Amino acid sequence: MGFFSQLEQSLLMTEKNEYDLLAKRMKDIYLLGYTKAIVDWDTKVYMPSDGYEQRAEGLGILDTHIHDMFVSEQTGELLKKSYKLPNLTDIQKRNLYLWQRDYDHETKVPSELVQQLTEQASKTEHIWEGAKNKSDFKMVKPELEKLFELTKKKAAYLNPDISIYDSLLDIYEPHLTQTMVTDYFNVLKTGIMKVLKGCVNCADQPDDKILKQSVPESQQEELSSILKKLIGMDTKRSRLDKTEHPFTTGYGDDVRITTHYLEKDVMASFYSVMHEAGHARYELDLPKEHMWTAVGQSCGMATHESQSRFIENICGRSEEFLSYIFLQIKKIVPAFADLTFKPFIRAINVVKPSKIRIYSDEVTYSLHVIMRYEIERDLCSGKISIADLPNVWVNRMQEYLGVKIDNDKEGVLQDVHWYGGMFGYFPSYALGNIYDGQFLRTLKKDIPNWKIELKSGNFNDVIGWMDKNIHKKGFMYDSINLVEKITGEKPNAQYFVDYLNEKYKKIYGF
Amino acid sequence: MGFFSQLEQSLLMTEKNEYDLLAKRMKDIYLLGYTKAIVDWDTKVYMPSDGYEQRAEGLGILDTHIHDMFVSEQTGELLKKSYKLPNLTDIQKRNLYLWQRDYDHETKVPSELVQQLTEQASKTEHIWEGAKNKSDFKMVKPELEKLFELTKKKAAYLNPDISIYDSLLDIYEPHLTQTMVTDYFNVLKTGIMKVLKGCVNCADQPDDKILKQSVPESQQEELSSILKKLIGMDTKRSRLDKTEHPFTTGYGDDVRITTHYLEKDVMASFYSVMHEAGHARYELDLPKEHMWTAVGQSCGMATHESQSRFIENICGRSEEFLSYIFLQIKKIVPAFADLTFKPFIRAINVVKPSKIRIYSDEVTYSLHVIMRYEIERDLCSGKISIADLPNVWVNRMQEYLGVKIDNDKEGVLQDVHWYGGMFGYFPSYALGNIYDGQFLRTLKKDIPNWKIELKSGNFNDVIGWMDKNIHKKGFMYDSINLVEKITGEKPNAQYFVDYLNEKYKKIYGF
Repeated sequence: MGFFSQLEQSLLMTEKNEYDLLAKRMKDIYLLGYTKAIVDWDTKVYMPSDGYEQRAEGLGILDTHIHDMFVSEQTGELLKKSYKLPNLTDIQKRNLYLWQRDYDHETKVPSELVQQLTEQASKTEHIWEGAKNKSDFKMVKPELEKLFELTKKKAAYLNPDISIYDSLLDIYEPHLTQTMVTDYFNVLKTGIMKVLKGCVNCADQPDDKILKQSVPESQQEELSSILKKLIGMDTKRSRLDKTEHPFTTGYGDDVRITTHYLEKDVMASFYSVMHEAGHARYELDLPKEHMWTAVGQSCGMATHESQSRFIENICGRSEEFLSYIFLQIKKIVPAFADLTFKPFIRAINVVKPSKIRIYSDEVTYSLHVIMRYEIERDLCSGKISIADLPNVWVNRMQEYLGVKIDNDKEGVLQDVHWYGGMFGYFPSYALGNIYDGQFLRTLKKDIPNWKIELKSGNFNDVIGWMDKNIHKKGFMYDSINLVEKITGEKPNAQYFVDYLNEKYKKIYGF
Repeated sequence: MGFFSQLEQSLLMTEKNEYDLLAKRMKDIYLLGYTKAIVDWDTKVYMPSDGYEQRAEGLGILDTHIHDMFVSEQTGELLKKSYKLPNLTDIQKRNLYLWQRDYDHETKVPSELVQQLTEQASKTEHIWEGAKNKSDFKMVKPELEKLFELTKKKAAYLNPDISIYDSLLDIYEPHLTQTMVTDYFNVLKTGIMKVLKGCVNCADQPDDKILKQSVPESQQEELSSILKKLIGMDTKRSRLDKTEHPFTTGYGDDVRITTHYLEKDVMASFYSVMHEAGHARYELDLPKEHMWTAVGQSCGMATHESQSRFIENICGRSEEFLSYIFLQIKKIVPAFADLTFKPFIRAINVVKPSKIRIYSDEVTYSLHVIMRYEIERDLCSGKISIADLPNVWVNRMQEYLGVKIDNDKEGVLQDVHWYGGMFGYFPSYALGNIYDGQFLRTLKKDIPNWKIELKSGNFNDVIGWMDKNIHKKGFMYDSINLVEKITGEKPNAQYFVDYLNEKYKKIYGF
């Protein structure tokens, strides 16, 4: 078997250069990744339950194949030779940079350590499930300690010249550092705690019980399909299904979102559809001409969250959009027939410190993320240890949110991330909010009347702006640079604080 | 890159021998095939329509990978070494035989010809779609000629020592020859034409218009789920969805069937569910201990058809089962409320020569297949040419079925098989019927009262018998040998003729 495939050899002998060959190889890898995403989707959406074991094996082998294809010597060789080609375009250079970055990530870490990490992560996640059920952190503590040690080793291999935590942050958001995050999050924390104080001290609290009516699934589905249409999810290129936990997957002309329907909480599916549809529009709008290359991907998780949360919160919970959809909801959901608008919009935007991140409101959400960031950071610096996690968690929840955590399940065991080895991931969630504040400011300057269209359920202005400024840029820039390019400023959390302050002052009247 | 993978090398150094390595490699290949089947299923069932192009590319690459993995030198080397191992079990020998057979099929034909064939088949099939729409055989004739020439070349590479048509037959049913098929089909043809004559000459014809009522999809779905349950499709291991054309796919603990609902033809979905559920039970019942090996597969298409058609026709259209399900149908489908049993069972079993194979009845079905066989055979021997197809088709339809074909769409263009390069495939369909007649005879001897349970919708006896004698045997024997093992006789079409004769004499009273 030659070093290059027969096809590659014959292509090299014709007009193709090494970059073209690499691009073809990467396209194949992306395409295989796409088929894997569809099988993953099926696993969560339609697979008969007993298929689980063979499915896990099948996906494991497919994953190994894709990985082996990417980290092969051929890829390394093509990368090396492509760099030396004359007249590379900026797009080609960016692709090479991103592929090299991924290649380094996958090859710098000894394969033995990768294997250990994969196994330890899978084991820890499995034990975490049991521990969460029994609400007992101690059950998973020894495994989490092992996983954390392996993760630190990996971080050192990836970037021996920077701190462990900076190396972990860089995995999920290129060039993000602890110093930057601390700066952003300090502004965010101070600002949010002030807004939160204003809300909780208000005498006239919204009553969100009015939203907790029994609503049949068929009515909830009707609302979902209206939202999907309003947010411009083309049915020829996308679909919506039901799963336990909502998510978005797919690529190109085949993007899929899911939601869940809770009988007594129609707004849960309503906003999960808006959130996932925000993700979906990003994927659907990526630049056609760069499909199946690195530049044709989204620019990472923080930006993805900024898109979903902009649609869900900044648009979806705005007075303008709610004034439109309120009438639709009343038509479709008889249980809401007697509701009036003001209590409705106040209930939708209720601010209430709570225990669980994924059920928290627009104001307190970032505080959940910030405390996780601070804990990760202190773990990596050695200031605290894995054994300290439950107590640190309880104390910080009390300090930031005034919430008393009674057990590990609602505390340190609530999120899977750490138990899957994803240390350094949490900051992206709040970073998305910070970007949103900044995008909003620039959007207002570019289209002063942008919100007017929302009054008739029309998202063209806002998504058009996002499309041009964000979606169509693909992964041409790292997210931090993209934010600066669009807004003329480095990430600055103050704008998101300003947005919250203005909005909630009006709703709560503080 | 070494000749064997790192894993394989380390396994060889421990207790594993080459057979174990080969089995592991084959398991990976089957597992990848299973993930591909799921993506294929998704393409037909849930993919957004515009996803078609990227899906085809993704599936193409996945397919190439699976193929490359199978035909690699490593597979060949492991096969060669495995044969020399001492103390191979019969199961292991059978696996080696089947893998070698497939390996030879995939490697004997020069890869250039494989590539040409794949492309020509895909092109011809595409043009066939347009030609069928316009009902114009001439549009696809030149491409079909090229495809047929390439197919003959392939047949010569596969088996240089036998005739082209024998080589093609052997692809789909190992060791089946033209002489055998001609023998079987002559008995079948004579017998069926006699039964057919009895039916069409009968003065009191059944009125199948009584079945063509408008039936809402929800009622048809209710019937489907009853059938699925009766035939024992465990919901934890299987599912049922809607597609344009019904099919069965999947393996092991994840088997899937589809059906279509026609508003004015409730029995179409009813019997397509029975048919596909028959296929599904075969897949679901394959021997657990041989999963992901060759022996753990079904023993080919003729046997698969025998299982689906036994459930659909011999059980599903029997007086016993109909007496049970008739009451259920009347309960679920108000449009059938006034129906009485005798006209119902006669309408279900109406015999009417018709133009389209897939809509034909139990009696005439095999005639459609036999005429296709005769045409293929004469094509391969050079007695007729591709240009003659439309006329030969018209003449034979007239001769065997007394049906006048007015256009190519209802004639030579109706089935995709030839246009996809599948010459030699058709006989399996009627072979399934022949096996059924023979299985039925032995089943009657083994369990004289086997039909009694059907009167209460209970398939345990019949499927238990099939499970033990057929399903649990996997691919331990070629189908022709399996039939002999079970029934003590080589395939003999007379038994199926006897079955038809007895049944339709009673229904038509000739």
